[in-house]
Amino acid sequence: MKSIPIILLGCGGVGRQLLHHIISCRSLHSKQGIVIRVVGVSDSSSLLVSDDIMLSGMRDEFLAEICRAKSAGSPLKSLLNHGHCQLYTGQDALENIVSIASSLGRSTGLAVVDCSASAETIGLLEQVSSLGCCVVLANKKPLTCGIDDFEKLVSHFRRIRFESTVGAGLPVIASVTRVISSGDPISRIVGTLSGTLGYVMSELEEGKAFSEIVRAAKSLGYTEPDPRDDLSGMDVARKGLILSRLLGWRINLSDIKIESLYPSEFGPNSMSTEDFLSKGLSQLDVKLKERVATASSKGNVLRYVCVIEDSRCNVGLRELPKDSALGRLRGGDNVVEIYSRCYKNSPLVIQGAGAGNDTTAAGVLADIIDLQDLFA
Amino acid sequence: MKSIPIILLGCGGVGRQLLHHIISCRSLHSKQGIVIRVVGVSDSSSLLVSDDIMLSGMRDEFLAEICRAKSAGSPLKSLLNHGHCQLYTGQDALENIVSIASSLGRSTGLAVVDCSASAETIGLLEQVSSLGCCVVLANKKPLTCGIDDFEKLVSHFRRIRFESTVGAGLPVIASVTRVISSGDPISRIVGTLSGTLGYVMSELEEGKAFSEIVRAAKSLGYTEPDPRDDLSGMDVARKGLILSRLLGWRINLSDIKIESLYPSEFGPNSMSTEDFLSKGLSQLDVKLKERVATASSKGNVLRYVCVIEDSRCNVGLRELPKDSALGRLRGGDNVVEIYSRCYKNSPLVIQGAGAGNDTTAAGVLADIIDLQDLFA
Ligand SMILES: NC(=O)c1ccc[n+]([C@@H]2O[C@H](COP(=O)([O-])OP(=O)(O)OC[C@H]3O[C@@H](n4cnc5c(N)ncnc54)[C@H](OP(=O)(O)O)[C@@H]3O)[C@@H](O)[C@H]2O)c1
Ligand SMILES: NC(=O)c1ccc[n+]([C@@H]2O[C@H](COP(=O)([O-])OP(=O)(O)OC[C@H]3O[C@@H](n4cnc5c(N)ncnc54)[C@H](OP(=O)(O)O)[C@@H]3O)[C@@H](O)[C@H]2O)c1
Repeated sequence: MKSIPIILLGCGGVGRQLLHHIISCRSLHSKQGIVIRVVGVSDSSSLLVSDDIMLSGMRDEFLAEICRAKSAGSPLKSLLNHGHCQLYTGQDALENIVSIASSLGRSTGLAVVDCSASAETIGLLEQVSSLGCCVVLANKKPLTCGIDDFEKLVSHFRRIRFESTVGAGLPVIASVTRVISSGDPISRIVGTLSGTLGYVMSELEEGKAFSEIVRAAKSLGYTEPDPRDDLSGMDVARKGLILSRLLGWRINLSDIKIESLYPSEFGPNSMSTEDFLSKGLSQLDVKLKERVATASSKGNVLRYVCVIEDSRCNVGLRELPKDSALGRLRGGDNVVEIYSRCYKNSPLVIQGAGAGNDTTAAGVLADIIDLQDLFA
Repeated sequence: MKSIPIILLGCGGVGRQLLHHIISCRSLHSKQGIVIRVVGVSDSSSLLVSDDIMLSGMRDEFLAEICRAKSAGSPLKSLLNHGHCQLYTGQDALENIVSIASSLGRSTGLAVVDCSASAETIGLLEQVSSLGCCVVLANKKPLTCGIDDFEKLVSHFRRIRFESTVGAGLPVIASVTRVISSGDPISRIVGTLSGTLGYVMSELEEGKAFSEIVRAAKSLGYTEPDPRDDLSGMDVARKGLILSRLLGWRINLSDIKIESLYPSEFGPNSMSTEDFLSKGLSQLDVKLKERVATASSKGNVLRYVCVIEDSRCNVGLRELPKDSALGRLRGGDNVVEIYSRCYKNSPLVIQGAGAGNDTTAAGVLADIIDLQDLFA
């Protein structure tokens, strides 16, 4: 039996779903000769570490209890007396992870799994990676920092996986990596990489008003708490940056041309979320209606896409033929088209649900399992 | 620098393209810290083994010479005096491979790469696998033999790769494997898995006669020398069997319901290829025209598909909605739809060129590179 010890950073929607998946896959994985041992779990305020790092890690009942407590809004520290574990906070927590990493890194191995939404984990991830550990991310931020930090983080390329950062569980990163390593040079990637914006564009096409669509999407839980986090295009730009860097481009977020769906006067620095929803949004209706109509008059549809080509990554609205893979798209699915020597006239297309805790966590789990050959 | 020694079985269209890719990727792979050493190459009659197994393997100039000779129709044995190598034939060749496998298998590692079209390599592949070596296949036959042999062959699942057997270089096997290992149970796979039959169905939809289409496809080089090898559906059934077995089903080729596009009276045992092309084919025109018309009258199109569902794999013609992913397909692209818990209402779709020496060999090369963590 091969044992994969992990420390989970972040225990929100994705992190908890990952713990559930790990528990429910126990017998599947054991048939494959693998056991995932959760030795530590952190949230924004503290880290719980199992007393039993070298053996079984946290028991499944305790992991389930962590999920229940976190989804009820309690912090991890409320669980200190429930499992056989220690609690660390602040600098102590970081030092503890590094100490586990140095003891396990070069012996049995350790994977640090970042399901947080924090930009601050990067230093820790770099450190554990340099200690021989593996890193798996659903969190895009450490991969979209400055290029030097990015390169340091991915310098042990076989020990890092980040499938779920683009298209959730869709095999986008894995496919791009395969195409590159087969010597088939990628000339262009075009994708709709936001389920939320995909939904918005489909609904616009149906003739609905932008403001109504966004308000409905928010109430359906399709958007971030502040829908401007989706409408700014920043999340799509981060995904585009990750793909561009995967192609070997040394670019930064600031090199990406990003078209926001709202003007800067309506931004979070000038307007509250409430004001944006009640007053700002409806002022954008006419302009977007016009753009949809202009596209339609040419037989095209409007899509919010990321285009990676000729050393440039652009993110924004594009008119696309109705009958192209991206033009046909309805609803929240993501589509990625990859053009290369082998896929020249007709691209390699990957399509499917590109968001959601279930598929994101499934992608993280597949990444962990895919690291198995690096574990003792 | 990590060294991956390989022995290549088969030096036809795919095998030669693989050697070309290996040569042209030298600098790419060396940046990744990998060098692929070709220590042996075989064709149907003999095996050439480098004198320099432990160091560099065959020189690139010699590999290029092998490609030139084989594409000019010369057998490998004509090259004996050109490289620093030995020639083996028959049982000697097999024994030599096994002896290399036992010396390298547990030390530096060895990958045996099957780009032959032979059903006879399976015994050898099983043997080298049991000696700790890796196996990579473009050849479907060893994976579509009896279930016991299949299970023996894939029993070291991390040491075998066979992406190119389904959809050529398209990441179908890799994606199915990822979905399974993330504990997301696959309920259904539907795919068009033959570029030739995709082309035929598109052309039928345009109103052309079946006989004309097949003759044109043959003269364009889209079909096997005997087009019945495509029209029988057997190749699609082999791909379906590989996918079904990947789902853990213990089934055999004989369990698959296969609809042939010609009746058995027109089969190779009753009719020569020439007679089939000149006389047999045109007798099938009316029936196929009718089936296309029936489908069309319901707003559907006719596709030759593989459906894997409820423990059954069926291969044949199906009427599908015009605006489904498979219905929209034009030309020779392959499409695979994967339905699972995460991809329930809207499947995970993978689409692109599913045949051709370039993409098939690229898929084989990506498989070899993906094995790197198993090499010293
Ligand atoms: N959900 C999706 O569809 C999806 C898809 C692709 C990628 N992602 C990415 O996956 C990540 C997680 O998403 P989510 O939806 O689970 O977010 P979430 O529900 O907001 O959870 C974030 C978790 O991270 C914790 N956290 C914050 N800062 C931390 C730190 N410095 N160290 C450790 N933990 C920290 C939070 O702690 P508290 O509990 O104390 O607040 C919380 O538990 C995000 O980066 C997101 O962008 C999500
Ligand atoms: N081309 C594609 O698009 C594609 C796509 C997916 C999968 N594939 C599969 O890839 C494989 C190779 O295809 P191909 O187009 O390259 O076929 P090919 O051109 O017919 O070449 C087959 C090669 O295998 C050799 N061979 C036959 N029996 C052998 C044996 N027992 N041991 C070692 N070598 C043997 C042949 O030797 P001789 O040179 O002496 O005849 C020839 O060099 C086939 O299994 C095919 O189904 C092809």
